[in-house]
Amino acid sequence: MKVLLAQLNPTIGALEENTNKIVSVLQKARGKTDIVVFPELSISGYPPEDLLLHPAFADDVEKKLQQIIAETEGLFVLVGTVRKNLDEKEKPLYNSVAVIHNKKLLGYKDKTLLPTYDIFDERRYFEPGKEQKVFQWNGKKIGVLVCEDIWQHSGAIEVTKYNRDPVQELKELSPDIVFNLSASPYYYRKTNLRLTVCEKAARTLSCPMVYCNQVGANDQLVFDGYSYVVNEKGELVKIAKGFEEDFVEIDLSKKNPVVTFDQDPLEELHSALVLGIKDYFYKQGFTKALVGLSGGVDSALVVYLATKALGNENVLTVNMPTRFSSLSSIEDSYQLTQNLRVELKDIPIDNIFQKYLDLLCPYFNQRPFDTTEENLQARIRGMVLMGLSNKLGYIVLSTGNKSEMAMGYSTLYGDMCGGLGVLIDVSKTLIYKLCNWINEREKVFPTSILTKAPSAELRPNQSDQDSLPDYKVVDAVLQDYVEEHKSQEDIIEQRGFDADLVKDLIHKIHRAEYKRRQSPTGIRVTKKAFNRGRNFPIVQKWHLPMEGKELSSWTKT
Amino acid sequence: MKVLLAQLNPTIGALEENTNKIVSVLQKARGKTDIVVFPELSISGYPPEDLLLHPAFADDVEKKLQQIIAETEGLFVLVGTVRKNLDEKEKPLYNSVAVIHNKKLLGYKDKTLLPTYDIFDERRYFEPGKEQKVFQWNGKKIGVLVCEDIWQHSGAIEVTKYNRDPVQELKELSPDIVFNLSASPYYYRKTNLRLTVCEKAARTLSCPMVYCNQVGANDQLVFDGYSYVVNEKGELVKIAKGFEEDFVEIDLSKKNPVVTFDQDPLEELHSALVLGIKDYFYKQGFTKALVGLSGGVDSALVVYLATKALGNENVLTVNMPTRFSSLSSIEDSYQLTQNLRVELKDIPIDNIFQKYLDLLCPYFNQRPFDTTEENLQARIRGMVLMGLSNKLGYIVLSTGNKSEMAMGYSTLYGDMCGGLGVLIDVSKTLIYKLCNWINEREKVFPTSILTKAPSAELRPNQSDQDSLPDYKVVDAVLQDYVEEHKSQEDIIEQRGFDADLVKDLIHKIHRAEYKRRQSPTGIRVTKKAFNRGRNFPIVQKWHLPMEGKELSSWTKT
Repeated sequence: MKVLLAQLNPTIGALEENTNKIVSVLQKARGKTDIVVFPELSISGYPPEDLLLHPAFADDVEKKLQQIIAETEGLFVLVGTVRKNLDEKEKPLYNSVAVIHNKKLLGYKDKTLLPTYDIFDERRYFEPGKEQKVFQWNGKKIGVLVCEDIWQHSGAIEVTKYNRDPVQELKELSPDIVFNLSASPYYYRKTNLRLTVCEKAARTLSCPMVYCNQVGANDQLVFDGYSYVVNEKGELVKIAKGFEEDFVEIDLSKKNPVVTFDQDPLEELHSALVLGIKDYFYKQGFTKALVGLSGGVDSALVVYLATKALGNENVLTVNMPTRFSSLSSIEDSYQLTQNLRVELKDIPIDNIFQKYLDLLCPYFNQRPFDTTEENLQARIRGMVLMGLSNKLGYIVLSTGNKSEMAMGYSTLYGDMCGGLGVLIDVSKTLIYKLCNWINEREKVFPTSILTKAPSAELRPNQSDQDSLPDYKVVDAVLQDYVEEHKSQEDIIEQRGFDADLVKDLIHKIHRAEYKRRQSPTGIRVTKKAFNRGRNFPIVQKWHLPMEGKELSSWTKT
Repeated sequence: MKVLLAQLNPTIGALEENTNKIVSVLQKARGKTDIVVFPELSISGYPPEDLLLHPAFADDVEKKLQQIIAETEGLFVLVGTVRKNLDEKEKPLYNSVAVIHNKKLLGYKDKTLLPTYDIFDERRYFEPGKEQKVFQWNGKKIGVLVCEDIWQHSGAIEVTKYNRDPVQELKELSPDIVFNLSASPYYYRKTNLRLTVCEKAARTLSCPMVYCNQVGANDQLVFDGYSYVVNEKGELVKIAKGFEEDFVEIDLSKKNPVVTFDQDPLEELHSALVLGIKDYFYKQGFTKALVGLSGGVDSALVVYLATKALGNENVLTVNMPTRFSSLSSIEDSYQLTQNLRVELKDIPIDNIFQKYLDLLCPYFNQRPFDTTEENLQARIRGMVLMGLSNKLGYIVLSTGNKSEMAMGYSTLYGDMCGGLGVLIDVSKTLIYKLCNWINEREKVFPTSILTKAPSAELRPNQSDQDSLPDYKVVDAVLQDYVEEHKSQEDIIEQRGFDADLVKDLIHKIHRAEYKRRQSPTGIRVTKKAFNRGRNFPIVQKWHLPMEGKELSSWTKT
């Protein structure tokens, strides 16, 4: 029993392109393998979100499935698809797997457990599958589960305790092998948890399990891949690459040696951020990125990641000093761009800043310098970046980090400008960890960028710590309150922080919600990111631009 | 059997304030009425969204419920609350009604049907109620349903066909009267549909039904109130006011005469928009609004609505002409602000515009004038408004309409700036209808504002129709595709529009998604608004600022 795991990177709604990829895999596999398995919802890409509310979308997916079925000669194929719920109760669709053998559709296996928490909202679209099934192949009983279906068994989901356990249900049908089709997104330090979940399921089922995961980034979600096979004892015998497409073959009639898997979490974080940028650009047909450099660690890391994702020749940086910019920041930016061989333009903005002060002063009622003037500088920078972006076709990468986003320590329409927030889900302390990890491998960041006190340089001798406690404190509260939903009282007690300080930070987190609503989409790399994905994907291709017709240019704005 | 319907306007998460309101109603009702009913989730306000993910939030609500129970002497009280699901399968909470009699909690009735579509995501938080119940009061059987529970019976929900019908289930228990506690948001032309739904349920149950709805705006949602009572034939015998708090008494032991209800949909739209602004400001403690005037119909309508919501003395308008602004636009703005007795400041921005051109020209590679320069003007205006906002404490109202949001015909960080998008869910054609309706009652808008061709005035002799088809066409496709999810093919066939035109418009709708993600929250007034509400509310008060402590000023930014 030769199995091919096709760990694909689909684009949401790009039905033609995704189907072509699937068909191409089938054509190459014919004669070489017996069974081919693809990830969850591989025809549409995951998550298709509210595209699913268009009945015409499911019709279009169904047509592509027919095309795929026609290409399965000599193969047993499992492909993730949407299926209409014909009795129309209660939701109109199933998140399903089409099980195909030799050009014949044997049937569908519908996803039983529909995650509806965090970034998942499958109950919005799908009806849960009613029962477990096995399919016959050469006298073997093939069980099929979809992503979440194996998670309840291990008790690894914190927020939902399902009434059903599909692993236990399937065990009663005594499958010889079980396939799990997944689209399981990455977060920092998740990889091992996923292996544990699979191990437990395989042990209960006493049979090998083949787990095929999606790879690639869609909007804020990064799928890490790492498809794998465990034997009937739950031991790992094969694992695909992380963060890239991969095709893994295994012969399950043979005894396969156990392999080990050990990944550096910081290396994974690095890969996730690079892939997040790469796919945001690639899937929309963009090539060039623009970053405003401040001399600080956030913009430095963003430029570095952009060069890894797009190539240094496709990254343009801009230095936009005012009277408050320090010489050392300018020097650090210069050194950084030299290290990375990236173009740097100097566009001083102090004259325009002064113009605004002159223009607005009569209306400011003699009030003193405050955040208004700070925001003006940040917004002029945003305008310069957007001007270059609009005229020259660069996409602005926003450099704000999760700690700032949590606190609202950022300027709307200023440093929050951009198409993609690269570090929007990376806390300040994690940014330093990652930069140090990078510098250990390749000396990229001038030392002073990593050692000086963070400052927005929007007024004389400013430091972030004029307005905020130490980032270690901010990030601890961020972790406890936002990621773990701990109570104020528990945080105060367990961390030993000052009670008023914790209350103030939590208040700030809530207060900044309106700002985060207007932030760009950002790459999700933790268990709980701000601004989850919802409704229509930004990156999607259903209803492509018409061939040969230029769209009105303002859609680029 | 004297019943009081307390149609309250709660603030999300303001547990103290909401509870005080409830207690005050109970204290006034004592001795005068028998039964008091409040809306769905009235302690927390609806929708509390991800506040529900904090276990401490449900604990805090529970404490408030105990406080309410203590105030129910001599009364039978129905109050909407969250309740912990003690067996912890599958979701940790119920959306519930506490049924209280004379300081004793008789029990809970949990919501059976949990809407999980459009703006609703109740499956994210709640477990469905298992069964129907009746509670005894003076030998009468009191049935309790929560909002959505009565909707399946009439088949009025388009997107979900539930497996269960709580009305039919409850009928088997032969209730003498049924209470429905709701938080049913407004949309244009919805009011009569809601009455029909209740009529059908009452007829099936052959008993009177008391429907108590929330009123007020929370983020983008506007709740219209209109709580009412129908008799056992489903005939309307009492109805509360729309769009404001109201307290309606009825004696159900008597025969109550049938009343009629007929509202002008444009009047309701007007009320919804005014309430949307009012509560966005009031619930956050803001009083003053700032609007950039273009001389066009959108900004004119926003200024008018702001004066209705906040008083003309609290509205500041700014005219920011460039070389492309027409004299007639400036005159129209002047006339409008005179009619509305609103302050108008003139802040010409052409000099700063020229400064940007001078600054950026060397980097523009001799490319011709395009949307870049248009966006620069819009963004300078945004900066001026945000500068005044930051320094003087005004909240900027954004003036973009739904047709522009659909098409992406707007400038990110420019005219999209603001705290609240007043017209973000009102199409251009509906804006004209509403303005004409207003002008028929009160001559507010200079005629030329309503008759001239829409123009952004960002280049010489510009008209919106240089870039877009007639707004009637845009709005028809918007309605069919976004609100009705019709297919491209059906729209082309049914409307008789050019196929390429329809395809181009649909493509633009998808393409503009990234812009809409960065738009301010806007008031929802149709069945399907862009940018649904999700996760944490912007307007909420759980974890209030600490008494007597000023927050760091940058949280205002």
